[in-house]
Amino acid sequence: MKKIRVELGSRSYDVCVGAGLLGQLGKWASEIGASQAVVISDSNVAPLYGRAATDALAAAGLKAWQAKPFPAGEPSKTLATASTLLDDLLTHSPAIDRGTLVVPLGGGVAGDLGGFVAALALRGLRVLQCPTSLLACVDSSVGGKTGVDHQAGKNLIGAFHQPSCVVIDVETLRTLPLAELRNGLGECVKHAVIRDESLLEFIEAGAEKLLATDGRGDDEKLSFDAETMARLIARNVAIKAAVVSADEREAGVRGHLNFGHTIGHAIETFVGYDNIRHGEAVSLGMVAANHIAKARGLLKSSQARRITKILAKLQLPTTTSPLDAESIWQIMQHDKKALHGKVRMVLPTDIGKVDIYDDITQAEVAQAVEAVGK
Amino acid sequence: MKKIRVELGSRSYDVCVGAGLLGQLGKWASEIGASQAVVISDSNVAPLYGRAATDALAAAGLKAWQAKPFPAGEPSKTLATASTLLDDLLTHSPAIDRGTLVVPLGGGVAGDLGGFVAALALRGLRVLQCPTSLLACVDSSVGGKTGVDHQAGKNLIGAFHQPSCVVIDVETLRTLPLAELRNGLGECVKHAVIRDESLLEFIEAGAEKLLATDGRGDDEKLSFDAETMARLIARNVAIKAAVVSADEREAGVRGHLNFGHTIGHAIETFVGYDNIRHGEAVSLGMVAANHIAKARGLLKSSQARRITKILAKLQLPTTTSPLDAESIWQIMQHDKKALHGKVRMVLPTDIGKVDIYDDITQAEVAQAVEAVGK
Repeated sequence: MKKIRVELGSRSYDVCVGAGLLGQLGKWASEIGASQAVVISDSNVAPLYGRAATDALAAAGLKAWQAKPFPAGEPSKTLATASTLLDDLLTHSPAIDRGTLVVPLGGGVAGDLGGFVAALALRGLRVLQCPTSLLACVDSSVGGKTGVDHQAGKNLIGAFHQPSCVVIDVETLRTLPLAELRNGLGECVKHAVIRDESLLEFIEAGAEKLLATDGRGDDEKLSFDAETMARLIARNVAIKAAVVSADEREAGVRGHLNFGHTIGHAIETFVGYDNIRHGEAVSLGMVAANHIAKARGLLKSSQARRITKILAKLQLPTTTSPLDAESIWQIMQHDKKALHGKVRMVLPTDIGKVDIYDDITQAEVAQAVEAVGK
Repeated sequence: MKKIRVELGSRSYDVCVGAGLLGQLGKWASEIGASQAVVISDSNVAPLYGRAATDALAAAGLKAWQAKPFPAGEPSKTLATASTLLDDLLTHSPAIDRGTLVVPLGGGVAGDLGGFVAALALRGLRVLQCPTSLLACVDSSVGGKTGVDHQAGKNLIGAFHQPSCVVIDVETLRTLPLAELRNGLGECVKHAVIRDESLLEFIEAGAEKLLATDGRGDDEKLSFDAETMARLIARNVAIKAAVVSADEREAGVRGHLNFGHTIGHAIETFVGYDNIRHGEAVSLGMVAANHIAKARGLLKSSQARRITKILAKLQLPTTTSPLDAESIWQIMQHDKKALHGKVRMVLPTDIGKVDIYDDITQAEVAQAVEAVGK
């Protein structure tokens, strides 16, 4: 088992990565001092791992129960779903109290939604994040961002609420659709570009081992090498943890994690959250950001090409059908990271190094969007 | 003008108390660095002071607007109202961003609801609290507790979100119903009992000046002495500020502020939020808590009688129609401050001194509830 510490003073916590950790959930819940635990997951994950989670918690002496699963998919990530979950928690018998632990079990939606519900119930319950998608493992489960989407944009409603522990069982990733695994790899490429060129080499070299299906189709269990997967996740978590420790509230360097996300989020909003995966949108967003960086003379053409090539090797999109640049720009104005109406973007200046620019023009965005949407 | 500092490290802020401060709102909003401001108030307060607030903000060069007022009253303090306000904010044009300031203007509901909406919008906008009820001035506007009620109990959904500034214009209190002023005085008595016997003397001595109506009826403007009112508010804010500074997240001494609130909240839930004012419920809750403290030999009978007598002088209820002790106890189990199913209560051990007890029995609560409900 690999353990990564997220340093946040009195709110520091560990991220544990390994094979078969789901069966030991109760150990960590007990260490946190919880007496009761509620597992929050969607209609896909609940039948697969919900029982294993509550059994593991009950084995450690906790009163453990599952909240009614919400329908799988990003469209569930709304204030209305959060409200239904809050009703479930607040009317449960025996009553929840401040000794109750919330265990989001699933992908990014379960983590963001479950963490958000935990942030609000009784003004804050403790959380044990148990991500089961690669994207959630390397990104959303660490850092304390929780929230839901709004018709005006993604993640526009939310709260910062750090978990007390994150437990990642790589075996739970074997039931992911292959496309979902690729989705997470997009975020891994992002971490490599902003902080660590050697991680980019690791992904290039390990792509086959990570995407292995042993010739089975997309619907079969994945046969990735568990050790390679655990190493990949641990390296990415370490990058994310370091950034979050340095800047919990996104006043500075945490903004670097938004590389690929400014235009990426706008594309998601434009085409509809249920028509594109987050990692796919981020892949397009990174290619678009690299285009602007290249045009500004910040990034070499060869470097931009290398990143695009790796994304393509991971079968992530690097181009898409035509986009309306004007609409994309309008959506970007509504981005919650905008300040005084200015659009900010993270641009790479090398592989492993980025900076934040707040003088991005509409013309630059239009050119980048046209380069991607063709 | 009196200025009280709430010390919370990088999140410290000032509470300003005086007559005529509403017209200077723009000054504080500018100091915070806001470029846009949205005023949130209810259907009673918006017509009275909404325009004065937006005018004052606009005069300082901010883009200022009023959110659609929500219906006045505690029943509006729900996740559904918060959702409507979030829709209003997130679809506003020009778009809100992290330079947007939220200005809750009104009583406790506007403050709790407006603060809650600010906590969630874009994962946290800055807040300038502008309380216009005595209760909100001395209690809810300071300390960063925000939230909404749930059918299962009061304030069960919420977030900690400190304001950047609190501006109290005592002149806005003149339009309060007299009963609402009494409501706030109940909370002042609470502060005196937990921390400061001399404040109790100040309230005893100043009761007539504070409750003055110049012979006019309950619907007329109040004619309290502005200086006495400002001093009362400043003293209470100083007590609240000291407690919050010592324990922002309610891990310890902040719990003292719950004196009168454990049974008080249960009574509110039992009789329905719209059938009793918060200060009235707290008045009953204090009398009930004193009953338990007396029975335990912690508080002298003469001290309990003195507190009851002052509450009666302020025309706050000290007895009520019969209550169902079993239901009250059940509701108390759901109190969000309960831990591992234990009921905790704050009991006075002297006037100006309290302690927290977590070994409260159902029998003690039943006796106290019977003593109050007769």
